[in-house]
Amino acid sequence: MTVTYTSSVSTSSVVSNFLGLLLRWRGSIYKLVWHDLLAFMGLYFLLAVAYRFLMNEHGKKLFENISEYCTRNVGLIPLSFVMGFYVSIVMTRWWAQYSTIPWPDPVAILVSSNLHGYDDRARAMRRTILRYVCLCQVIVFSMISPRVKRRFPNYDQFIEAGFLLENEKTIIENLDGAFPKYPKHWMPIVWAASIVMRARSENKIRDDYAVKTIIDELNKFRGYCGFLLYYDWVSVPMVYTQVVTLAVYSFFLFTILGQQWTQNERSHIGESVVKWFPFLTILQFFFYMGWLKVAEVLINPFGEDDDDFELNWIIDRNITISYFVVDEMHQEHPELVKDQYWD
Amino acid sequence: MTVTYTSSVSTSSVVSNFLGLLLRWRGSIYKLVWHDLLAFMGLYFLLAVAYRFLMNEHGKKLFENISEYCTRNVGLIPLSFVMGFYVSIVMTRWWAQYSTIPWPDPVAILVSSNLHGYDDRARAMRRTILRYVCLCQVIVFSMISPRVKRRFPNYDQFIEAGFLLENEKTIIENLDGAFPKYPKHWMPIVWAASIVMRARSENKIRDDYAVKTIIDELNKFRGYCGFLLYYDWVSVPMVYTQVVTLAVYSFFLFTILGQQWTQNERSHIGESVVKWFPFLTILQFFFYMGWLKVAEVLINPFGEDDDDFELNWIIDRNITISYFVVDEMHQEHPELVKDQYWD
Amino acid sequence: MTVTYTSSVSTSSVVSNFLGLLLRWRGSIYKLVWHDLLAFMGLYFLLAVAYRFLMNEHGKKLFENISEYCTRNVGLIPLSFVMGFYVSIVMTRWWAQYSTIPWPDPVAILVSSNLHGYDDRARAMRRTILRYVCLCQVIVFSMISPRVKRRFPNYDQFIEAGFLLENEKTIIENLDGAFPKYPKHWMPIVWAASIVMRARSENKIRDDYAVKTIIDELNKFRGYCGFLLYYDWVSVPMVYTQVVTLAVYSFFLFTILGQQWTQNERSHIGESVVKWFPFLTILQFFFYMGWLKVAEVLINPFGEDDDDFELNWIIDRNITISYFVVDEMHQEHPELVKDQYWD
Amino acid sequence: MTVTYTSSVSTSSVVSNFLGLLLRWRGSIYKLVWHDLLAFMGLYFLLAVAYRFLMNEHGKKLFENISEYCTRNVGLIPLSFVMGFYVSIVMTRWWAQYSTIPWPDPVAILVSSNLHGYDDRARAMRRTILRYVCLCQVIVFSMISPRVKRRFPNYDQFIEAGFLLENEKTIIENLDGAFPKYPKHWMPIVWAASIVMRARSENKIRDDYAVKTIIDELNKFRGYCGFLLYYDWVSVPMVYTQVVTLAVYSFFLFTILGQQWTQNERSHIGESVVKWFPFLTILQFFFYMGWLKVAEVLINPFGEDDDDFELNWIIDRNITISYFVVDEMHQEHPELVKDQYWD
Amino acid sequence: MTVTYTSSVSTSSVVSNFLGLLLRWRGSIYKLVWHDLLAFMGLYFLLAVAYRFLMNEHGKKLFENISEYCTRNVGLIPLSFVMGFYVSIVMTRWWAQYSTIPWPDPVAILVSSNLHGYDDRARAMRRTILRYVCLCQVIVFSMISPRVKRRFPNYDQFIEAGFLLENEKTIIENLDGAFPKYPKHWMPIVWAASIVMRARSENKIRDDYAVKTIIDELNKFRGYCGFLLYYDWVSVPMVYTQVVTLAVYSFFLFTILGQQWTQNERSHIGESVVKWFPFLTILQFFFYMGWLKVAEVLINPFGEDDDDFELNWIIDRNITISYFVVDEMHQEHPELVKDQYWD
Repeated sequence: MTVTYTSSVSTSSVVSNFLGLLLRWRGSIYKLVWHDLLAFMGLYFLLAVAYRFLMNEHGKKLFENISEYCTRNVGLIPLSFVMGFYVSIVMTRWWAQYSTIPWPDPVAILVSSNLHGYDDRARAMRRTILRYVCLCQVIVFSMISPRVKRRFPNYDQFIEAGFLLENEKTIIENLDGAFPKYPKHWMPIVWAASIVMRARSENKIRDDYAVKTIIDELNKFRGYCGFLLYYDWVSVPMVYTQVVTLAVYSFFLFTILGQQWTQNERSHIGESVVKWFPFLTILQFFFYMGWLKVAEVLINPFGEDDDDFELNWIIDRNITISYFVVDEMHQEHPELVKDQYWD
Repeated sequence: MTVTYTSSVSTSSVVSNFLGLLLRWRGSIYKLVWHDLLAFMGLYFLLAVAYRFLMNEHGKKLFENISEYCTRNVGLIPLSFVMGFYVSIVMTRWWAQYSTIPWPDPVAILVSSNLHGYDDRARAMRRTILRYVCLCQVIVFSMISPRVKRRFPNYDQFIEAGFLLENEKTIIENLDGAFPKYPKHWMPIVWAASIVMRARSENKIRDDYAVKTIIDELNKFRGYCGFLLYYDWVSVPMVYTQVVTLAVYSFFLFTILGQQWTQNERSHIGESVVKWFPFLTILQFFFYMGWLKVAEVLINPFGEDDDDFELNWIIDRNITISYFVVDEMHQEHPELVKDQYWD
Repeated sequence: MTVTYTSSVSTSSVVSNFLGLLLRWRGSIYKLVWHDLLAFMGLYFLLAVAYRFLMNEHGKKLFENISEYCTRNVGLIPLSFVMGFYVSIVMTRWWAQYSTIPWPDPVAILVSSNLHGYDDRARAMRRTILRYVCLCQVIVFSMISPRVKRRFPNYDQFIEAGFLLENEKTIIENLDGAFPKYPKHWMPIVWAASIVMRARSENKIRDDYAVKTIIDELNKFRGYCGFLLYYDWVSVPMVYTQVVTLAVYSFFLFTILGQQWTQNERSHIGESVVKWFPFLTILQFFFYMGWLKVAEVLINPFGEDDDDFELNWIIDRNITISYFVVDEMHQEHPELVKDQYWD
Repeated sequence: MTVTYTSSVSTSSVVSNFLGLLLRWRGSIYKLVWHDLLAFMGLYFLLAVAYRFLMNEHGKKLFENISEYCTRNVGLIPLSFVMGFYVSIVMTRWWAQYSTIPWPDPVAILVSSNLHGYDDRARAMRRTILRYVCLCQVIVFSMISPRVKRRFPNYDQFIEAGFLLENEKTIIENLDGAFPKYPKHWMPIVWAASIVMRARSENKIRDDYAVKTIIDELNKFRGYCGFLLYYDWVSVPMVYTQVVTLAVYSFFLFTILGQQWTQNERSHIGESVVKWFPFLTILQFFFYMGWLKVAEVLINPFGEDDDDFELNWIIDRNITISYFVVDEMHQEHPELVKDQYWD
Repeated sequence: MTVTYTSSVSTSSVVSNFLGLLLRWRGSIYKLVWHDLLAFMGLYFLLAVAYRFLMNEHGKKLFENISEYCTRNVGLIPLSFVMGFYVSIVMTRWWAQYSTIPWPDPVAILVSSNLHGYDDRARAMRRTILRYVCLCQVIVFSMISPRVKRRFPNYDQFIEAGFLLENEKTIIENLDGAFPKYPKHWMPIVWAASIVMRARSENKIRDDYAVKTIIDELNKFRGYCGFLLYYDWVSVPMVYTQVVTLAVYSFFLFTILGQQWTQNERSHIGESVVKWFPFLTILQFFFYMGWLKVAEVLINPFGEDDDDFELNWIIDRNITISYFVVDEMHQEHPELVKDQYWD
């Protein structure tokens, strides 16, 4: 599950509560940036040592020239602009993906309300419709999330977890043979619709109106699942991601060169400080690299970062609650009594 | 309730009415920033005093070098960019959260119109459905808002306030035992749907169409409540908040160093001014810190800032108006008479 | 009504038609900015005169130092950034508010089509439903707009204008006593729904389907009216408005200091020009203050600026057209004849 | 019709296909900017000539001072910022307006499917409903577009074009007398709804359900037409447009002064180049003026620019296709035969 | 199909996985930019050689002046701003276009559920409705995508592929003669609606409700197809594209001049480096040109770039799955058995 910190920032207090967030490690910027930072500083000090102890006069002169050139021109790339726009785009997609995850609750409530009967067949119908709805979601999740894929590497795990039965597996596998290129997540939804029609013809659902409502809701569920797949297929265009990555990494390559301490005149001030530890440069690295990591973490919110959505929790919750609503709670409600404010 | 000032800015007058807003204290920027400002100025003057009276020549030289270095390089971090984008994102979420708060009025009007009968049972049905709707909202609010949580620390307070009855509490608590990890806000909605179905089978609701409409509206209400929870679970990614906070605070740390008055040549102009009070630096601090506080206040609009939503008012209003609409006003309307423009 | 100029810019001609807009006064930037501009220039020249004629050498030196310091550091506040983002947010809200204003036309068409009968009672029903719809809107408008409030300071003016009858006023006033803290705009909508149910039970509306459609539309209307209220309650957070206002005004305070002509070396160029009239500084003031005024005008679009929405026109239009559609035009249409292209 | 170039940019080829677009004239930036550019260059060279040949020493000195001052301070106005935000707002509105244009196709399909009968009266009903729908659109278009207004200056042209009949014209003109201030585009929609109700009572439409669907669709159509009017009434606030226009034009006024070649020390480099032709300044003018022209063209997309929407084409298409669908194609479809993949 | 890389970035690992993306060729920035880069470097070195070996003193002096002038003034055009806003607009449209592509699945499920019967006529009806839906989409795709156009250059290829029959082709061709200017994609949808009405009158669809639902869905499908056409007709205004293209290319033209190594004083530092290879300038070119290419690739997502949508795959998938759902799977579902968690 995404690292939740809303409750820590519920009010703006004397000591800024955003400062408190800086002390966290899980899902933090430090955890994401530290290896890049190490590499950056390693390279920086390697060059610094080389310049001071290994180079002869001619080498030093050349190095100073290169360093000077980098200092002057590193501003040619408008890093802040491109990062600002790129991260905005990635965050918009990230939230849209989250909002797209469908929940089976409306289907469950509709089925529980409209598919009458306490006999085994009615119960089986209600449970099976909801199982199919959850199955559709699990199939899609296993296509877009490596974490769910590891939990359900093939159909047998679906069966073990109770989402699929043997005879259904056979049907899907046959279809996989016939149309290997197309995803099959819509199949359980078509089955669910067929069960709804059967329930209508057996008069377990008593009006056409309810049939229509349930099928609409099934279609909506399938639509959202399909949209999750599209988000997976069509990401932010790779060209854009490449442009941004190239910009950030080459910017810091040239920063390593340009921020070196050298012996020419510009450097006489502050020499004792930057000589060995250019802390503002390191802060700048931390800042831009952190901004890039925000994009890196959010671009695939169904991955395995600390901050990614906990799809396995969603899967378990959905099947449990669905069964509960359509079975245990079927048309049950607490006794009707007068409430406290009754006239 | 959010600090309302719309009526003070209804027209653009001779003296800008935005200027008038600067005189307010409640929910104001001063109230939010003053302690940070004190800390900032304290640190600044501490260093200034130390530099002028405590350091020896060598220390002064070092300090001047550091200060010079900070002045030159503090521009490496594009604070305005990252703040602009970040605050935009936070504000968009903030308004979306506000718009997501559901109101029971449509359910009340539909139930009042379609669930007929003046006997006790019909009244109890109408009142109970609306009570369940409000209960669902209160449960969600108590999960996302510390202020509501304090008012309703556990189910007993729900009972006291008339949202829950003893027998219902028992059911929910049993369920809490069975599925401790999942929120239970959807249960009252399922009960409400069951009551609607019962009313239909007792012919208190006279057509399937009305049943469908009410259940749709219940589902919509539950959906919005669920969305409020998702906003709580998945906030702006913590990495982003950390990057911004780090940027602002380290920026001002280096500003404290870089904006010190020192004895080297750059400082001969304006020396008498900045010597003791760098007012533009302080204004800059005020500005950026204020911008950050906007984000801090808005990131959790259900918290306890002056500017946060008054959920307790909403809770009271909803249960009162709901009961009123479905009970006192049930299918009542003023006598039909000819209006003023009748031909 | 908002100042309309679309027809003046219908095509891009030889002389830019945007230039033509600069000649307008009503709703113009000049009308909004001129007093601020006067104050700005007054202060500027006051200081200029004081510097040249009133100060002794020591005072001049101090003033020059302060001026120099302001010139150097006024760039510390990124005015263009914060203005760009702030005005974007305000404009988005402004248009959203305009789009939220509901129109009774769909209700009128549905009522006119589905509530049959030419007798007085049917006519009264149709007219009353629409009157209630318009009443709901007028109540909301009088809560959010000072201009409408002046027209309808209390319920008596509603009665005079024909939106409310005496007996209805009594009911609302009783309720005002019982629940003084809650707005009452939803009451007429509940009444309208009750009349619809009565019309159904008297078979003036012939199918449940039409009932559902009308009540849905009533609910939608009430929803939009409620949303107008939320926009009024929760504006752009005051903290943000304060940050922006502070930034703009303090920026120009320091500009007045920093852009003064002084005798030190930097000023030997162009001295004869800026000596008495710093026209670019004035243009800059005009520009930023104009940008701020855009926000000031748009932040409350229901106020009394030239550019604000003409709610009184909307009120009159709605009641007139509503009565006309449900009464004179009730189920009337021109005779059906063959059209021109009838084979 | 908007200048279409999508097919020229279908793929990114060896020579950038955006370069190819630079060779177009119709709807191009050159066509929009050339007169402004001429005026700009005329003024520039006038001043250059005056400076070199007409001024005495004192005049030259003054001019140099002014020029120097403009060069230094022209950056005070953040042109790129305000243009970026302004053009974004204008483009968003432009596309929203385009998306708002309604099409009668859904009404046509619903009427054709549900209003049964091949007799003259049924045909007249179907055709008249669609004629009213198109009439509503044409009335709105003639209110917002000067091009359509020229085609339909008054009701007689509507009659000639077959959108209106004499008796209908009389009704509308009477109403124009009674309520001159309100637009009348909703009247044909009310008539259409009345015809639908008549068709139902004559059992030409066989179920209430279809009636509801058609009236919903009519309401939606009227809603979109109304929204086109609102876009026309409430444009981007004139204050904003004035601020932007003032900024751009005064920027270039001061650029003309500031970019002049003068004899003071700064100018010794590159003198032979900028002496007579400041090509980068001209490019800058081209760029910013082009950006402004984008806004100017898009702010009223129903005007007469090359790039504006071709409303007359839409009008003709809609009436033609509507008649065709509800009449010739009424409940016709090709013979049902087995398709190619029939098992 | 768009180049998919989501699975490569599922988690943020030790070595940034964005770095891995830099090694790809297909759909990469290198593939898009290399020819422009070659041209840029060719021009650059041509000038460098000319300056050093071909020019006499006077030519060198002139060249140095021009170079100096370009260096100083190339910042006049705010490239990063206009690129940021332009690419944002293009990306928003790109994703909107992708989201607009309709899928026939909801129609298929509704038809399969509601159009009963296993005889040949019922099967033919179901299959034909879905064939018409797919046909509508294929017609639209062939109008907006050169790749699909190549696959279906005229109606005969539609017939071959099984989307169209001979008799239908005749009807459409007749209509093409009558109304050559209007697209015909809506015709199959009108036919499909007629078949639905026929099925209702033959009682193969058993309630009016289902009829309404299917026709709504058909209308929605047609609406989306129409919207794809509008996106094709009205692209980002050409003026804007021209402004951006001009800005980028002229910027680099002046960069080639301004970034040359010359003998005047500014250049004594770093001379050995930039003398022959200005690597930061080349990186800058790479960066801005890459940003422009992002826009170029996305502006027509139905073209033939590596990154464009694979419409042919969508066409094949849709007809296959549609037939499968309405025919093989018609009202079939796996046997109902007790699931694993059955109490």
